[in-house]
Amino acid sequence: MPRVVEPQGVEGRTVTRVRYTETDRMGVAHHSHFLAWFELGRTELMRERGCPYGELEDREGVFFPVIHATAAYRAPARYDEQLSIATRIASVRGARIVFEYEISRAADGTVLATGSTEHAAVDARGRPRRMPAELRRKLEGLDA
Amino acid sequence: MPRVVEPQGVEGRTVTRVRYTETDRMGVAHHSHFLAWFELGRTELMRERGCPYGELEDREGVFFPVIHATAAYRAPARYDEQLSIATRIASVRGARIVFEYEISRAADGTVLATGSTEHAAVDARGRPRRMPAELRRKLEGLDA
Amino acid sequence: MPRVVEPQGVEGRTVTRVRYTETDRMGVAHHSHFLAWFELGRTELMRERGCPYGELEDREGVFFPVIHATAAYRAPARYDEQLSIATRIASVRGARIVFEYEISRAADGTVLATGSTEHAAVDARGRPRRMPAELRRKLEGLDA
Amino acid sequence: MPRVVEPQGVEGRTVTRVRYTETDRMGVAHHSHFLAWFELGRTELMRERGCPYGELEDREGVFFPVIHATAAYRAPARYDEQLSIATRIASVRGARIVFEYEISRAADGTVLATGSTEHAAVDARGRPRRMPAELRRKLEGLDA
Repeated sequence: MPRVVEPQGVEGRTVTRVRYTETDRMGVAHHSHFLAWFELGRTELMRERGCPYGELEDREGVFFPVIHATAAYRAPARYDEQLSIATRIASVRGARIVFEYEISRAADGTVLATGSTEHAAVDARGRPRRMPAELRRKLEGLDA
Repeated sequence: MPRVVEPQGVEGRTVTRVRYTETDRMGVAHHSHFLAWFELGRTELMRERGCPYGELEDREGVFFPVIHATAAYRAPARYDEQLSIATRIASVRGARIVFEYEISRAADGTVLATGSTEHAAVDARGRPRRMPAELRRKLEGLDA
Repeated sequence: MPRVVEPQGVEGRTVTRVRYTETDRMGVAHHSHFLAWFELGRTELMRERGCPYGELEDREGVFFPVIHATAAYRAPARYDEQLSIATRIASVRGARIVFEYEISRAADGTVLATGSTEHAAVDARGRPRRMPAELRRKLEGLDA
Repeated sequence: MPRVVEPQGVEGRTVTRVRYTETDRMGVAHHSHFLAWFELGRTELMRERGCPYGELEDREGVFFPVIHATAAYRAPARYDEQLSIATRIASVRGARIVFEYEISRAADGTVLATGSTEHAAVDARGRPRRMPAELRRKLEGLDA
């Protein structure tokens, strides 16, 4: 079970709507798209904190592939509903970073899913590497 | 950590290739597509065992939404590589069923990812329901 | 060739960002996702004009499956770039409706792609049906 | 309108099944996935003809981004149906190549969609480039 994202721990929040192409024949969003929404959450969190992920890749040569992911689904997300994605950094240790997520329906606050992703810092060839000091500082600041 | 899918526990095996649209700018398959490949694995397993999932929905009114999913990524999947998806049923209890997966590179057997999905049997309105007796028998047979 | 979406013909405009999962190993957004962005454009256009598409399906039993689509790609869309999607209704005739799109990079206005989709109004069983009078009025108003 | 893919013009044929994640709340495959299936068709065609696309990119530095795409949808593709994808090369001129596709339901041969994609040969930086002579020979052979 992913740890619950406590309100006081919320570091970033962004919104999106469920796209038609994200629904499936069960009439609700397919479970795989929650991983894409988690990704939206961490993209916005990193941008807000001054380390946009695209620049990390392009300028620093640091990549954060996902090495572990979990998702717990509580209620369905429906077409065109506005979703609120809360994201926090749970830990930064060595070359590892863990993000936690909570996705809720914006209209009434119902929690639809929680989850987590663990990432390893690697270089362009996929070899583990240390995070640049400034990046670590910004990320650790996120968790303060 | 998902339990390792032991060779003796492999119940179904299917293959697919990494599509171009499944790769991302890191040059490898995006992590979210492993959930779709897990789904391929359980679709084929259920077909082989005489309970094709589409017929469950259309004829029996039984749906198996995912309520929990995990994935552990060990090595990247590259464009056009053939993947081997091993799937087993780990447990069938009440209205819950758990599948476990291991995805390996067909060319050399390298394990790329393992994972699990837990499903709840529900009716067309999303209410929990018992699995039909015959379905349960077939599924429990899978685990024998 | 889709007709160019002239500035004076722009009926709706919405924005989105290129997601990581939408990029491919060429380092840019995969061409198939432009169809999803076109869909975002018409979803927002219909919402603004008082006929949200989800309500059409759920309340009126009117569905608008795509029967023809075109896309002309001029320049790549890159990860995390903000896109501006301009959408207009090109024609409403009988049970047919044609939308046209122009997607540009928000930062500098460069046009990345243009396209069109043609839709047929059908009922829940896929049979052609007339559009409700009020819907037609709203849609024709769009084209005025 | 894309030219119809005549049986005598079929150069390659491959099969796939409609995945659950490819369906939408209309209960059928979302139109955007046909572009991914077209891509499967040309991937297999190029492999059969001795020029696997991945090797073109990795060894020759030749990329074939899509510059124009069309799709005409005639009948819905449903979950788990086996699809047959017929692909032919319609023209190779200068740095441009056009593929045409016809997707049918394997069970009864019903044509579900036809379409085309036009590609421009470019280098890793996206600049137009000549196709290597051997590649052109193989591709022109395809059209013979």
